[in-house]
Amino acid sequence: MKILTQGQGLLSPQVIQAKIDNLNKPKGSLGRLETLAMQICLVQQTLSPKLTHPCHILFGGDHGIEREGVSASPRDVTWQQMLNYGRGGGGVNMFCRQHGFKLRVVDVGVDYDFDAQTAPHIINRKIAYGTKNFLYEAAMSQEEWERALAVGAEQVDACKDEGCNIICIGEMGIANTSPSSIIMHLLTGIPLQQCVGAGSGLNDAGVKHKFDVLQKALSSKVTTSLPTREGQGGVSTSIFPYFMGFEMAAATGAMLRAAEHRMLILVDGFIMSACMLAASRMEPSVLDFAIFGHCGDEGGHKLMLEAMGAEPLLNLGLRLGEGTGALCAYPIVQSAVNMINEMDNFDHAQITKYF
Amino acid sequence: MKILTQGQGLLSPQVIQAKIDNLNKPKGSLGRLETLAMQICLVQQTLSPKLTHPCHILFGGDHGIEREGVSASPRDVTWQQMLNYGRGGGGVNMFCRQHGFKLRVVDVGVDYDFDAQTAPHIINRKIAYGTKNFLYEAAMSQEEWERALAVGAEQVDACKDEGCNIICIGEMGIANTSPSSIIMHLLTGIPLQQCVGAGSGLNDAGVKHKFDVLQKALSSKVTTSLPTREGQGGVSTSIFPYFMGFEMAAATGAMLRAAEHRMLILVDGFIMSACMLAASRMEPSVLDFAIFGHCGDEGGHKLMLEAMGAEPLLNLGLRLGEGTGALCAYPIVQSAVNMINEMDNFDHAQITKYF
Repeated sequence: MKILTQGQGLLSPQVIQAKIDNLNKPKGSLGRLETLAMQICLVQQTLSPKLTHPCHILFGGDHGIEREGVSASPRDVTWQQMLNYGRGGGGVNMFCRQHGFKLRVVDVGVDYDFDAQTAPHIINRKIAYGTKNFLYEAAMSQEEWERALAVGAEQVDACKDEGCNIICIGEMGIANTSPSSIIMHLLTGIPLQQCVGAGSGLNDAGVKHKFDVLQKALSSKVTTSLPTREGQGGVSTSIFPYFMGFEMAAATGAMLRAAEHRMLILVDGFIMSACMLAASRMEPSVLDFAIFGHCGDEGGHKLMLEAMGAEPLLNLGLRLGEGTGALCAYPIVQSAVNMINEMDNFDHAQITKYF
Repeated sequence: MKILTQGQGLLSPQVIQAKIDNLNKPKGSLGRLETLAMQICLVQQTLSPKLTHPCHILFGGDHGIEREGVSASPRDVTWQQMLNYGRGGGGVNMFCRQHGFKLRVVDVGVDYDFDAQTAPHIINRKIAYGTKNFLYEAAMSQEEWERALAVGAEQVDACKDEGCNIICIGEMGIANTSPSSIIMHLLTGIPLQQCVGAGSGLNDAGVKHKFDVLQKALSSKVTTSLPTREGQGGVSTSIFPYFMGFEMAAATGAMLRAAEHRMLILVDGFIMSACMLAASRMEPSVLDFAIFGHCGDEGGHKLMLEAMGAEPLLNLGLRLGEGTGALCAYPIVQSAVNMINEMDNFDHAQITKYF
């Protein structure tokens, strides 16, 4: 919480803690809700925080690496699901409805031409029809990477203009656990094996194949010629365009911009956590704004969260993606805000102060 | 789920699972939401479950054992908080408001005379001004135990009459982690030391003193003369009136009656879990209707949940009681219901079926 507590004229954590400790409950007895309230007050620089106009941005993109058979689901599922969100029957739709999130579905790199007439819900920001196959070459160019970051930033700007101060980000992109595993491995140093999981449903042989493909991509001449280390434990951001998908790049750009706007960022599962990890290497303070919604069921997610010092709110074995895990955690964030705003305090409640 | 799956003419789990597996998502990818949906469909015997008129019943009572200094909070906090709920500023109030629960506050055994004029929110079902001190004698008589069970049942009946099919139960009773620890110890066989925690905020010396008091109560002549074992690993229910508080007895009665009505029961933290454990020894099928809201921060809660095979939905370090942890979990239950009702299926969504 460096950025949130070390500037001049900022609300001090002590003042916030005093308000929390004077609420009508044994000290600390609302656990994670109390630390969450602290974070939200720091981000919003107020003792009376509000959550306004929550938005969910879902970025879609396809992956060249899918051609290597690293996913249980076929590539076509990406565009089919993107269309399906327009009918309101996706996982992300129902949770957005349940929690009052406005949904923006953005095509950054799906391998399909959507018809603006029949699919008006899709915001067209397509950079390419999917990435290139990083087993052989960079997934995208530096210029495409920057464009994708800008798409993410622009979408967050649009949400902010509508009055949003808490954003959730999701993704749809068959095979995108593969680049996420590589990003995790390269940025944390955790052995690749522990970073690779079943994705949408690989069996053991499938996971083994996926691992072999990713291992090969990492050890290929092309990849090893990448500048990988930069300074103290750092990794060059040139690995991001080499491996990431367009939807991941846009999500990374969205997170960075949301932090600039001092918005809260609800982080979803394995893929979005990999993007937050990437974003945090570009700008460490982005983590101050991150609320990790859940620990997913994908192999490695728990380790990645630990590497970021993240304490996820939920642990429900979800691995659907789309941002669903983060959306399910939103009521907990609301509870933290309600606690600090609505709970009576000891002065007023005429209660013998608890220990 | 014996009672829910083994009767004649019941909806089969296979039929429910088929519906869940045909929803537009990788099989199993909504994790705990899927198992929760299964339970709810079995309880309600439908493929299209609904949650109607959720109610929260908060039972209050005082404890003779409080006189031994086993709690960080003084006895007066019980009645003060009971009054405070009428002002809407308690933890339970804000979470009831957030999630649309109707709150019933019931005095079963508080050591205070509430004024019906100034505290109209308190339903008066007082059996006594607190229990007796189980260090020396039984907390309540068998007749009082039965009356308290009946108070719980009657309150659930009232909720059901209003159209409620999901009930949450909470408690207010200074020192009630003490009887809960003893119930846990006697019913699970887990060493008492692992069943005793800090309650509302004891320090290490306080926890040690609490343990000593409970150990002494257990080893006193009076207590050891109780019939303790009955059949295979069973414990006589006569231990319940010996140790429990009136609010715990009423909660136990409420759980048993809710199961009879096939209502869902949201279970809160350490104390309510002890009541569910007790209820399950009186009628094992009550567990089929239980949804464990959270794993609290009280020492032993995790072990008690494991002893019941319970998988709590949240793990947020809460230890406020009042039912707050269970209330915070309610949106997850709603998400499970929304999933099975609103999520598109593969037949309709025109999606290549995932693996």
